Amino acid sequence: MKTLIKNGRIVTATDDYFADVLIDGETVNCIGKNLPVQADKVLDAAGKLVIPGAIDPHVHMELPFGGTVSSDDFRSGTLAAAHGGTTTIIDFAIQYKGKTFAQTIDEWDAKSEGKCAIDYSYHLAITEYEPRHQPEFKKIIDAGITTFKLFMAYPGVFMIDDQTMFRVMQSAGEAGGLTLVHAENGDAITQLINNLLAQGKVEPKYHAQSRPPTMQADGVARAVRVAEVAKAPVFIVHVSCEAAMKELQRSRDEGHPAYGETCTQYLFLDETYYDKPNFEGAKYVFTPPLVAKENIEPLWKGLKLGYLQEVSTDHCPFNFKGQKELGRGDFTKIPNGGPGVEDRLSIVYDGAVVKRGFSLNKWVEITSTASAKMFGMFPKKGTIAVGSDADIVIFDPHLERTISAKTHHMNCDYSLFEGWKIKGSPETVLSRGKVIIDNGQYVGRAGDGKFLKRGACAVM
Amino acid sequence: MKTLIKNGRIVTATDDYFADVLIDGETVNCIGKNLPVQADKVLDAAGKLVIPGAIDPHVHMELPFGGTVSSDDFRSGTLAAAHGGTTTIIDFAIQYKGKTFAQTIDEWDAKSEGKCAIDYSYHLAITEYEPRHQPEFKKIIDAGITTFKLFMAYPGVFMIDDQTMFRVMQSAGEAGGLTLVHAENGDAITQLINNLLAQGKVEPKYHAQSRPPTMQADGVARAVRVAEVAKAPVFIVHVSCEAAMKELQRSRDEGHPAYGETCTQYLFLDETYYDKPNFEGAKYVFTPPLVAKENIEPLWKGLKLGYLQEVSTDHCPFNFKGQKELGRGDFTKIPNGGPGVEDRLSIVYDGAVVKRGFSLNKWVEITSTASAKMFGMFPKKGTIAVGSDADIVIFDPHLERTISAKTHHMNCDYSLFEGWKIKGSPETVLSRGKVIIDNGQYVGRAGDGKFLKRGACAVM
Amino acid sequence: MKTLIKNGRIVTATDDYFADVLIDGETVNCIGKNLPVQADKVLDAAGKLVIPGAIDPHVHMELPFGGTVSSDDFRSGTLAAAHGGTTTIIDFAIQYKGKTFAQTIDEWDAKSEGKCAIDYSYHLAITEYEPRHQPEFKKIIDAGITTFKLFMAYPGVFMIDDQTMFRVMQSAGEAGGLTLVHAENGDAITQLINNLLAQGKVEPKYHAQSRPPTMQADGVARAVRVAEVAKAPVFIVHVSCEAAMKELQRSRDEGHPAYGETCTQYLFLDETYYDKPNFEGAKYVFTPPLVAKENIEPLWKGLKLGYLQEVSTDHCPFNFKGQKELGRGDFTKIPNGGPGVEDRLSIVYDGAVVKRGFSLNKWVEITSTASAKMFGMFPKKGTIAVGSDADIVIFDPHLERTISAKTHHMNCDYSLFEGWKIKGSPETVLSRGKVIIDNGQYVGRAGDGKFLKRGACAVM
Amino acid sequence: MKTLIKNGRIVTATDDYFADVLIDGETVNCIGKNLPVQADKVLDAAGKLVIPGAIDPHVHMELPFGGTVSSDDFRSGTLAAAHGGTTTIIDFAIQYKGKTFAQTIDEWDAKSEGKCAIDYSYHLAITEYEPRHQPEFKKIIDAGITTFKLFMAYPGVFMIDDQTMFRVMQSAGEAGGLTLVHAENGDAITQLINNLLAQGKVEPKYHAQSRPPTMQADGVARAVRVAEVAKAPVFIVHVSCEAAMKELQRSRDEGHPAYGETCTQYLFLDETYYDKPNFEGAKYVFTPPLVAKENIEPLWKGLKLGYLQEVSTDHCPFNFKGQKELGRGDFTKIPNGGPGVEDRLSIVYDGAVVKRGFSLNKWVEITSTASAKMFGMFPKKGTIAVGSDADIVIFDPHLERTISAKTHHMNCDYSLFEGWKIKGSPETVLSRGKVIIDNGQYVGRAGDGKFLKRGACAVM
Repeated sequence: MKTLIKNGRIVTATDDYFADVLIDGETVNCIGKNLPVQADKVLDAAGKLVIPGAIDPHVHMELPFGGTVSSDDFRSGTLAAAHGGTTTIIDFAIQYKGKTFAQTIDEWDAKSEGKCAIDYSYHLAITEYEPRHQPEFKKIIDAGITTFKLFMAYPGVFMIDDQTMFRVMQSAGEAGGLTLVHAENGDAITQLINNLLAQGKVEPKYHAQSRPPTMQADGVARAVRVAEVAKAPVFIVHVSCEAAMKELQRSRDEGHPAYGETCTQYLFLDETYYDKPNFEGAKYVFTPPLVAKENIEPLWKGLKLGYLQEVSTDHCPFNFKGQKELGRGDFTKIPNGGPGVEDRLSIVYDGAVVKRGFSLNKWVEITSTASAKMFGMFPKKGTIAVGSDADIVIFDPHLERTISAKTHHMNCDYSLFEGWKIKGSPETVLSRGKVIIDNGQYVGRAGDGKFLKRGACAVM
Repeated sequence: MKTLIKNGRIVTATDDYFADVLIDGETVNCIGKNLPVQADKVLDAAGKLVIPGAIDPHVHMELPFGGTVSSDDFRSGTLAAAHGGTTTIIDFAIQYKGKTFAQTIDEWDAKSEGKCAIDYSYHLAITEYEPRHQPEFKKIIDAGITTFKLFMAYPGVFMIDDQTMFRVMQSAGEAGGLTLVHAENGDAITQLINNLLAQGKVEPKYHAQSRPPTMQADGVARAVRVAEVAKAPVFIVHVSCEAAMKELQRSRDEGHPAYGETCTQYLFLDETYYDKPNFEGAKYVFTPPLVAKENIEPLWKGLKLGYLQEVSTDHCPFNFKGQKELGRGDFTKIPNGGPGVEDRLSIVYDGAVVKRGFSLNKWVEITSTASAKMFGMFPKKGTIAVGSDADIVIFDPHLERTISAKTHHMNCDYSLFEGWKIKGSPETVLSRGKVIIDNGQYVGRAGDGKFLKRGACAVM
Repeated sequence: MKTLIKNGRIVTATDDYFADVLIDGETVNCIGKNLPVQADKVLDAAGKLVIPGAIDPHVHMELPFGGTVSSDDFRSGTLAAAHGGTTTIIDFAIQYKGKTFAQTIDEWDAKSEGKCAIDYSYHLAITEYEPRHQPEFKKIIDAGITTFKLFMAYPGVFMIDDQTMFRVMQSAGEAGGLTLVHAENGDAITQLINNLLAQGKVEPKYHAQSRPPTMQADGVARAVRVAEVAKAPVFIVHVSCEAAMKELQRSRDEGHPAYGETCTQYLFLDETYYDKPNFEGAKYVFTPPLVAKENIEPLWKGLKLGYLQEVSTDHCPFNFKGQKELGRGDFTKIPNGGPGVEDRLSIVYDGAVVKRGFSLNKWVEITSTASAKMFGMFPKKGTIAVGSDADIVIFDPHLERTISAKTHHMNCDYSLFEGWKIKGSPETVLSRGKVIIDNGQYVGRAGDGKFLKRGACAVM
Repeated sequence: MKTLIKNGRIVTATDDYFADVLIDGETVNCIGKNLPVQADKVLDAAGKLVIPGAIDPHVHMELPFGGTVSSDDFRSGTLAAAHGGTTTIIDFAIQYKGKTFAQTIDEWDAKSEGKCAIDYSYHLAITEYEPRHQPEFKKIIDAGITTFKLFMAYPGVFMIDDQTMFRVMQSAGEAGGLTLVHAENGDAITQLINNLLAQGKVEPKYHAQSRPPTMQADGVARAVRVAEVAKAPVFIVHVSCEAAMKELQRSRDEGHPAYGETCTQYLFLDETYYDKPNFEGAKYVFTPPLVAKENIEPLWKGLKLGYLQEVSTDHCPFNFKGQKELGRGDFTKIPNGGPGVEDRLSIVYDGAVVKRGFSLNKWVEITSTASAKMFGMFPKKGTIAVGSDADIVIFDPHLERTISAKTHHMNCDYSLFEGWKIKGSPETVLSRGKVIIDNGQYVGRAGDGKFLKRGACAVM
C-alpha cells in the first residue's frame, strides 16, 4: 500500500521545506518535488505542516496508585494520544517487591497487548536490585527495554537507597542503557508531611508545601552526582523548577551526560492553582507539584538552550469524582497525577511557537526527535526521513480550538487546561503508514500499535 | 542535467540514514530508497558519508594588512576551500574611512568576481557609522548582505567606539540583521603593547602576552551588554578562551540572543607554539592569539552544548617568507593571520567525531548547518533536503592523510598543522549540483561560484 | 586633658563588651573595668553604645557641577557629618584638564582649610595622566593621598579612556595606592541619552533609563579586568545594582583584590521615586540612578557577606529650588547628586541592625572600620583601641527620631528620606578626644578638623 | 593575682596595636599604654604578638573507633594543644544507640574530668532522635552544649537518615543551637568500597578512591538544603574540596546561614601522600581523605573570603605501629584519623601569614575568634578585651622550628608534617590568667582546664 502526502511543508528538528512524501507500507520511501507516483491514497497537506509523529516518553496507563488505578488504560490512553498527534508512548513497568524483571514486563504486557492505537514501549522501574537481578539486565536490554527508572521518593513503596541507585546506574551504563530518576528527597519530604499533618494542614495546597523545589533540587543534585561517580548517563524526569534544572546544568557543564525533561503542566501552570475552592486544587495534585510562577520562563529557556531535552506529560489521570476525592481531609490520600497525553503537541506549539517565538524545528525536537534519540528509537521514530517509520502528523497551524474535558478523549472528568483557547492542532495522523486519525476522526483499531524494541540511547 | 548519488549514508544536523539523492540542475530533487532514475551522472557513495557542503563564515582573501596582502586571493582561496569540502565562504568587506557601504561592496566585488570556485558572500565591516550611512543600511540588506562586523581592536585603524557600536547594533537589529564583533579591549591592549616594547620584548611570543584572555573576555562582556541594551542580537567571532565564552553563556542564560564561534586553531593549538625557535612562532601570530591549553576542552564542550554555534577558520594567510618576516624585531609588525580554509572540515571531523565522540550530526551542524541558519542562508545551504542547493560532499570517514603545506592548495608556504595525521577526508564535492572536486581532483572553473544573497538571520 | 567615658557598651568590628575608656589628649589611653581615674571630663554612657566615629569615604563638598555648585561647603557639610556621628570624610579633589596633581590639591585645600568640624582627606580624581604627571605620583602619596579616582563616565568632561585607566592603575598599584573607579559605559550611555532626547523624553525618570544597570555592570566588568591585567587593586564606588556587584564577586573569587562600596540611597530607595509628580523625581537624580527594587536585598547581602566593603553616601547636595530646577525640560541639565552625609550612621543602623538582624560588629565594620583599613587610616581611625585617635560616638540605640530637611544640618532644602522614622541616633561625638557634639548640640569650632595623611591601603 | 603583659603587639580579629594588658584573676582587667601597675607577675612581650588563645573546635580524644581507641586522652591531648597555643578544644560526645543525651555527656565527662590542661566542651553527636529524646534537647542546651553533630557517613554505625537530620536541625534551630554535619553520601560510598574490595584493591590509597570529592559535595548539598527547608543554621565540618565548598557558597549566597570549616591537613597535603611506600599511606587515612592538589588554594581563598569560617584539626590520632597497621590488607580496617591539635596555630600562621600574605587579623579570626562566635563562647573566648577570659598566647613570629613526632607532645608515633620547617611559634600561653606554658615549658596541672558552658551560636 502506497500513500502520498502532497504539497506539505515538511518540518523536522533541522529542516523546513516543501515536498511530497511517499510512504510504502510502514515506512517513508521517497521525498521529492512533485513526485509523479501512483499512490493508493493521497493526502493533500497544502497549507499544513508535515511533522514527525510526537513521542510522549512519560505516561502511566492503568497504574495502581494509592488504592485506585489511573483512569486511562492502554486503549483509551493511546487513542487519546493519537488524537493529539502522539504516535509513540513510553509507559513505566514498575517492579513490585519480590518480582523479577521478566515478571514485571509480563505484567505490563498483559495490560497493553492488543489494546494500543499507537506504538508503545516501557521504561523498567526498578525498586529492588540484588545480585539475583543482574543476569536479567542483559536480557531486558536485548528485549528492547533500554531505560530504567528509579524513585528517590515514596519511601517504603518505590524508593531505593543510594547504594541501589549507584548499582543500577552502573549496570545500566555498562550495558548502554540509561537511568531515569524521579529525583526528590523522599525522607525529608516524609518529615515535612508529618509536620503538616500534625498541624492539621490537610488541604490539597499542603501537598505543594510538603514537596518544596529545594527538595527536588536536592534529589537532582544527588542523582547526577551518583551518576558521575558511577560513570553513567542519567536523565531526570519531570523537572519542574529552576533550582533543579540548574543542578543538571552544573553537571553537563562539567562534562557529564546529565539530561532531563519537563512536563506540560510545569510550563503553563503554577502553584496558585492549589487555591481553587471546593477541593478543586486536588486536580493539580501530582508529584512534583506546581511551583511558583517565576519558574515557568526558566523552564522554557531550558528547553530553548538545551538544558532540558524534551517535554513529556507524566500522564496519569484520575477522575475528580471518586478518585481525587479519596483525599478529602488528607492530601496524602489524593491519588497523584493528572491527564495530559492528548494535548501535549498542540499546547506546546501554542506556548513555544505562537507565544514565545521558538522555531518550528525546536518544537519538533522537544516533542519528538529528542525523545527518539535519547530513548533509543531514532531514526525509526522522531523524524521524516527515507527509511523511517511513517509516523507522521499533518498539523494545521491555524486551527483554533478550546481545550475541554467535554471534548477530549482521555478518560478523565477534568482537564488541566479547561477552557483554554489554543492555536494549532493535528488534523491527520499516520502510524507506521496507516492513517489512524483522519481529519480529527479516529479510524484505526485497537492493536494497531505494537510494542517497540528500543536500542542504545544516543547520549547527545 | 541530473546527477544521482547512490548508496550513501546521508547525514544532516539531525538525520542519519541510507538513501539515494537525485539532483536536478542546481538543487536536490528527490531523496529515496533505490531511486529508479535515469541520471546523467551517477556517483556511488557506498561506504561514504553524504553531507551538506561545509560553510566557512569567516575568511579574508586578498586582504591588505600591515603593509602586505593576505596571500590567497578569491581564486586560490576558494579552490583550496573546495578541496576541503567547503562550498560556501563569507569574506569581510571592510569599509575604509570615508567610503560608503556601496563603495566598500564594489571594492570587494572587484576582487571576487569571476574568480570563485564556490559560492561566496561578505559580511560588511563597518568602521564609520554616521547619519549619512543610515539610508544605506536598508539597501545593503536588500542586496543580500545581512551581517555587519565591528572591531573593538586596532585603535586608529578599524576600532569603533561604544557609541558607534550601539548605533550599528540598533540599526542592524531593527533591520533583521546581525552584528558580528571582534571583541577585545583595544585601548588596554595598546598599553600592554607599549609596555612590552618599552621593555624590549619584541619576539612573536609577546604578541600573545599583549592580548591576554582577560582582555578578550572584557571585550565580549562589553559587546554583549551593549547589544542587550540596544535590544539586538550579537555574534562574537573567533572566541578563543573559556573566559570569553562564559560571557556569552551569561548573556544567553539571561535570555539574550548572544552567539559566537571559535576557530580551528583554538581547538587544537595552544600558546606553547610561540616558543618555536627561528622566529617560527610568527606563523601562529593571529588575533586573538593562541592561549593556555586549559582552554581547549572547554571550547569543544562549548560547541557540544551550544554555547558556541560553529567553527570557522578566520583564514587570512601570509607566507612565512617575505610576509611574516616583516615582523622580525617587532612583533607588532608581523601580519596577523594564518591559513586554514582548506583543512577545517577534516580536522574538525578528526577532533570532534574520532577523538571526542561527537555525533556525526553535531559535526555537520557546527561545520555547516548552524552557519547557514545563523547567517541567513538556510535551507538553500546547510542541509541535504529537497529543494536545497546541491552543495554536497561525499566524505570518506576512513581515509587517512597527512596535512602538509607541500600538498595543500592554499597559497601559503606553511601549515598550522604540518605533519598531523588525520582520519576522514572529502572525496567528491558538488557545488550547486556540479561536481567540482572529483575524487580529490579539482574539475571546476573559476567563476563557478556566485555571490550569494543572504536573508534574515535565524536567531536560534 | 583627660576624658573618661564610663559604663558604655563598647562595640568594634569584632568586640562587644562593657568597660570604661580613658582618653588622654587626642587618643585612647586605656580601656578597663571601673577605671579609678581622675578625669577632666566624665561622660556617662550607661545604656549606650560606644563606637568608633563613622567614616564617610565618598563626599563632594562645594563641587562645581553642571553650571552650579554642590550646596554644602566644607563647613556646613562637615558640621552635618558630625551631627550624624561621622568623624572623618574623604572628598574628591578633581584634576581639571591642564592642571598638575599639586595644583589640584591646592585648589581643594583652599576650599577646606580652617572650615572643617572633623578630620578630612581627599581622593585624587585623575582626568589626565601623561608622562609629565608620573613624578607627581610619588609626591602625592608621600603627602598622604594614597587613593586615586577615575571616571568611566561623563565623556568630554571627566571620562578617561582604558589606556589611561591601565596606566593609572599600574602606577597606583606599584606605589601601594588604590584606584577607585566610577564604572559605567560612558559612550554607550551617551547614545542612550541622545536616543531619549530625540524622542522628547526629558523628564527626570529618563535619567534612570539612560543609565541602565547593564551599563554599570559593563563598566565594573571592564574596570576590574583592566585592574587584573595591570596587577593592581581596584575599588568600585557607588555600586547600585546586583549585576555590577556580581562582577566584583567574579573577580575576587578568582583571587583579585577587587572591592567596592554601595551608598545609603541604593540600600533604601528604588526607581519608583522618579515617578514623583511636580518634577520631584529630580531630587533623586544622581549617578548611578536608583534601580529596580529587586536590587536592594542583594546589596544588603553583599555587605553582609563581604562582596561589598562599606557604605558611603556620595553626598553631593543640590537644592531643589534653583539648582535641581535647572533641569526642567531636560534631564541632562539636572545637577547630579543628593544630600546624605548626615544620616548615614543612623539609617544604616536602622536598616542593618534593627530591620535585618546584622550584628552590631558588622554595622561598625561597614560604617567605619572597613573604610579605615581600605583607605589607609587604620588603626588611627576606625576602631576603639589603645593608641587610636579618640574619634568616638556615644550612640543611643533606642532613640527614635524622624528624618526631615527641616531639622537636618545639611545645606539642602530636601531630604532623600523625608519623614522616615528611624531608631538609633548618635548622642555625643568626640573628634580626636574633643567633644564636638554634646547631647545632640554642636559645641565644636570650624577648623577643629584637620587634613589627615593616609598610608598604604590594607587590601583585605 | 595580677599578671601584666608588657610591650606586646596585641592582635585581635580586627585590631593591631601596642599596649600593656593587665590580668586580674582569670580575666583581662585593663589594656593601656604603659600601665603603671604593680603586678604579681610581669611578662615582657616586646617583639612578640599577643593574641587570643587558639580554639580547636574539632577534636576526638580517647575515641573508640574500629576496634581501637584514639591515642590521645584528654590529658595528653590537651597538654599537646596547650603547647601549640590552643586554650580551648571542643570534643564530640557521641551518642551510642540506646543511650540518652545525658548518658552520653556523662560518659564523656568521665573521660575528661580532672585531666585537662585547657578549657573544653563537647558537641553532642546525635545518632538517634526520637520523640523520647526531645525533652532532653532543652536540658542539654541549658547545660551549655549548644551544638549538635550528625553523620551522613558510616551507615549502620553513626549514619542518620534525612528524616532524622531534618528533625534534629529543626529542634536545634528552634532552640538557638547549631547543627554540625559530617557530609558525605554514605550509601554510595559503601558501594564504592564494595566495588574496590571486590577488585582486590585494598591498599590505603583506595580509601581516597572510595570517598571522591563528588560524594562529599553531594553530602554538603543535601545537608544545606535540608537545613534550608528546616529553616535552621548548619555548619559543615572538615570541608576538604572546592566542590563541597561551592555548595556552601551557593546556599549562603541565597541568604541561608550555612557555614563550614576546613582542617589543617587539607590546607597543606594532597592525595599523592597515599602513594608512600611501606603502608605509610595509612598515616593519611582519615575521612574525608586528602584530595587533588588543585583544591588547596581554593580552600585558602575560602578562608580569606569567608566561604569557610575557621580551621580545625579533626585531631584523632592513632599510632602507626599497632593501630594504623590493623588495616594492612584492607583499607577499611585502618582506623580513620590523624594527629593535629598541637601544630595548628603555628602551621596556619606559616601558611596564611608568611606564605600567602593573610593579615594577622585574619589569622586570629580563623584560628580563634570565628570559632568563639560560631560556637557560643564569645566574648569569653576568642578575643583580648576587657572582661574576657585571659586565654592569651605570646607568639614569637620569628622563631623557626622543625615539626617532628620526636619532639611533639601528642601521643602519636608520627606527624603529618614530619620534618617541615615553619616560622612562628607560641612562646608563653595563659589559660584563664594562669601561665600554663612558660617559654615552651608546660607549667600547669591536669585539671586546670574546666568544662565550658557555651551559649547561643552567633550566626554571622
